[in-house]
Amino acid sequence: VNLGWAVDRMMAVATGQCCQVGSTLQRVHEEMVAEALRIEAEDREACSAIGAFGQDLVPEGANVLTHCNTGMLCTAGIGTALGVVIAAHRAGKRPHVWVDETRPVLQGARLTAWELGKLGIERTLIADVAAGSLMARKEVDLAIVGADRIAANGDVANKVGTYPLAVLARYHDVPFYVAAPVSTIDLSTPTGADIPIEERDPAEVTSPLGFDLAEPGTPAANPAFDVTPAELVTAIVTDRGVLRPPYGPALRGLSSTRGAA
Amino acid sequence: VNLGWAVDRMMAVATGQCCQVGSTLQRVHEEMVAEALRIEAEDREACSAIGAFGQDLVPEGANVLTHCNTGMLCTAGIGTALGVVIAAHRAGKRPHVWVDETRPVLQGARLTAWELGKLGIERTLIADVAAGSLMARKEVDLAIVGADRIAANGDVANKVGTYPLAVLARYHDVPFYVAAPVSTIDLSTPTGADIPIEERDPAEVTSPLGFDLAEPGTPAANPAFDVTPAELVTAIVTDRGVLRPPYGPALRGLSSTRGAA
Repeated sequence: VNLGWAVDRMMAVATGQCCQVGSTLQRVHEEMVAEALRIEAEDREACSAIGAFGQDLVPEGANVLTHCNTGMLCTAGIGTALGVVIAAHRAGKRPHVWVDETRPVLQGARLTAWELGKLGIERTLIADVAAGSLMARKEVDLAIVGADRIAANGDVANKVGTYPLAVLARYHDVPFYVAAPVSTIDLSTPTGADIPIEERDPAEVTSPLGFDLAEPGTPAANPAFDVTPAELVTAIVTDRGVLRPPYGPALRGLSSTRGAA
Repeated sequence: VNLGWAVDRMMAVATGQCCQVGSTLQRVHEEMVAEALRIEAEDREACSAIGAFGQDLVPEGANVLTHCNTGMLCTAGIGTALGVVIAAHRAGKRPHVWVDETRPVLQGARLTAWELGKLGIERTLIADVAAGSLMARKEVDLAIVGADRIAANGDVANKVGTYPLAVLARYHDVPFYVAAPVSTIDLSTPTGADIPIEERDPAEVTSPLGFDLAEPGTPAANPAFDVTPAELVTAIVTDRGVLRPPYGPALRGLSSTRGAA
């Protein structure tokens, strides 16, 4: 949703400029570059704000579980969920991160673990299935993830594996946080039930990065995302502040303040 | 536990034979081979009995979720959890199996999916993280897994990833079954809290089958097993019948009837 929102902003600038008397292709180009740089600057600021609001939720020396990649490699700033960890680290809280490898595409193993290493933040990679026993052994103080889309009621679509993590967190009384900029809120989607789940290439399951894990031709299913119901989300950390349930009124209020959306 | 139990039986035969007047190495060898063949035959029968008892729990056309490998490749017979599926298939119930790939060692992707294909049983491989959204979409009718050890109170140690599956099954009101021969019951272990969890080579997480998924040197944790509390287990399918909670008295009764243990 965040990506679509940015494309909409770019298209609005392009269309608006093209309609002006005396406009040139050169001028359209300049205005679009300027808008792209504004979006970049705003995203950097949004990440910093998410980090600042979110790090209040991270106790000193916390064991933080995260899923997928949500840091500097996928935003213009310090990130969303990982931005919160980075802000806590910069505040001297010495967090340790359990990094879900995030099958099937392995963003945790390939990106998040690497990124945290570069930043000097203590981290331990795990197979996604290990999260349950870590929680049972009380080795997880909080879980924090990003979002691809937040529906008007607070339901969250995110990388597959987010929802089971939220269920486990609830079962173990571990706080489960979602961190995302306001531009991820989609008020045109009433609930998570209205979010279509993309089914991706089964080869991501059977042969990740081209390496065969199963016999070629094995039937596989590969839902790219899942939906976490709002009732399992302890709080939503945005660039405008931390939201608590019930999310509906809070999201409507915040969303109306966002840029050109 | 099942493996240790079989080794104990073999050692008892060897020791007993060696102590007899006039015994020869040849005679010890013959008696041990005979005992091994008895264990094999008993295991084959135990699997068939588990299948026969368990298939009553499988509805016509059921979508069955399973974890790890529990079939003909790891028993002398049709298997434990997978034996139940095979028995249901042979009874004409046309089950469809969701096969957890079972990170980190991928027994589901490499063995179970292959084995079901050979048997002509419909199956779909999934990343372990997809189980939650399948349950949310009501595409799982039951989950069934094996066991490495069943404690005296019914707590179950099994491949890592079993416990989160049990939590998800409870959250979605999906029956969660454990299938294992009586020789897996360990009355000397009071509860799951008394079961040590083996921590295996982190390279299984970072570089499965020798293929690097994460930067070499990335710290990783790799618990091989997890413990599912008895309260999350709908029923335990054994070769002597289907046990329902409370498991303590039922397990004590059954265990006393097993072979040379």
